[in-house]
Amino acid sequence: MASPLTGPEIERLIDLLAKLPGLGPRSARRAVLHLIKKKEALLIPLARAVSDAAEKAMICSVCGNVDTRDPCTVCCDQRRDVSSICVIEDVGDLWALERAGAHKGYYHVLGGTLSALDGIGPDDLSIGKLVERCHAGEVKEVILAMNATVDGQATAHYITDQLETAGVAVYRLAHGVPVGGELDYLDDGTLSAAMRAKRLV
Amino acid sequence: MASPLTGPEIERLIDLLAKLPGLGPRSARRAVLHLIKKKEALLIPLARAVSDAAEKAMICSVCGNVDTRDPCTVCCDQRRDVSSICVIEDVGDLWALERAGAHKGYYHVLGGTLSALDGIGPDDLSIGKLVERCHAGEVKEVILAMNATVDGQATAHYITDQLETAGVAVYRLAHGVPVGGELDYLDDGTLSAAMRAKRLV
Repeated sequence: MASPLTGPEIERLIDLLAKLPGLGPRSARRAVLHLIKKKEALLIPLARAVSDAAEKAMICSVCGNVDTRDPCTVCCDQRRDVSSICVIEDVGDLWALERAGAHKGYYHVLGGTLSALDGIGPDDLSIGKLVERCHAGEVKEVILAMNATVDGQATAHYITDQLETAGVAVYRLAHGVPVGGELDYLDDGTLSAAMRAKRLV
Repeated sequence: MASPLTGPEIERLIDLLAKLPGLGPRSARRAVLHLIKKKEALLIPLARAVSDAAEKAMICSVCGNVDTRDPCTVCCDQRRDVSSICVIEDVGDLWALERAGAHKGYYHVLGGTLSALDGIGPDDLSIGKLVERCHAGEVKEVILAMNATVDGQATAHYITDQLETAGVAVYRLAHGVPVGGELDYLDDGTLSAAMRAKRLV
């Protein structure tokens, strides 16, 4: 921008918001105008909320979830099935599975996937900690819920190897037709996988 | 959400961000995870930026622009053409015109449009203040840059009437083919307007 249109504090807020995923410079500008219009209802509460989150957010030392306590809310939930750990790439995946109510055990966030291209090796992910947890006793099953990408699947293979001596059953998620999905829009790989895994009704 | 996945401070930040235009609950969650991952680089600076903006943002008492000073940066810019005022619906429109470098005079933000449906009358917009500015002397032309919507055009007509005795020339923006636009994708109204306003090359 050649000459500033508005105060430096507002420009700075726009610049920072524009760095969020899903927002660009234009939508950040619109968001900031919206915030300033709703100063009492939105901007001031947001100021407090961002400060609180900055102060209190932490990573769970057990599973890698993001929370304001350590161990996190999920790890502290005694009603969960201690024999089952679901391994995911990222915290967002944990939240997605929890929203779906799809898993009743505990979780383990890897923090990414192995990637030769990006130079991410086993030591960059919390795989060692996962192996430790599995050797510690109560765990009977590990569900590898990595993304169905090349890197995700390579990571799953690697973890399966690492867990060979841990005496746990290792599962992966089923492949198939997404619920609500239309066959015509699915890729060949998904269709083939769904056909191979066909089930008696 | 049935049971919380994470701390209340983080949930609160997600809820507030989800209220921004362009973000929903899902993208707000992704944004918050991104923020927490980049705590030093993003979350902490954002906390400061939002507080600063909440403290300092104000509405310009002359033109209605959003800034951290009053009168705003644009109104204080002495190099502008004092004889020309561009009237826009919203602050976002002002910023858009400034980014384009399309107007060298001053601005006047109405704060919306007349709307019988939403119960917005002339007293809800800063039309009175605009008439005052136009009567004050130096202003020679007013450019009505309202959106090309029914409400926007009704508002433009109303303002034109109000300015009849002010001795200023009232303009509206040209209608026509957007630069870079393809004829095949344009609506009939725009095509007809562009044809009626055809110009010798």
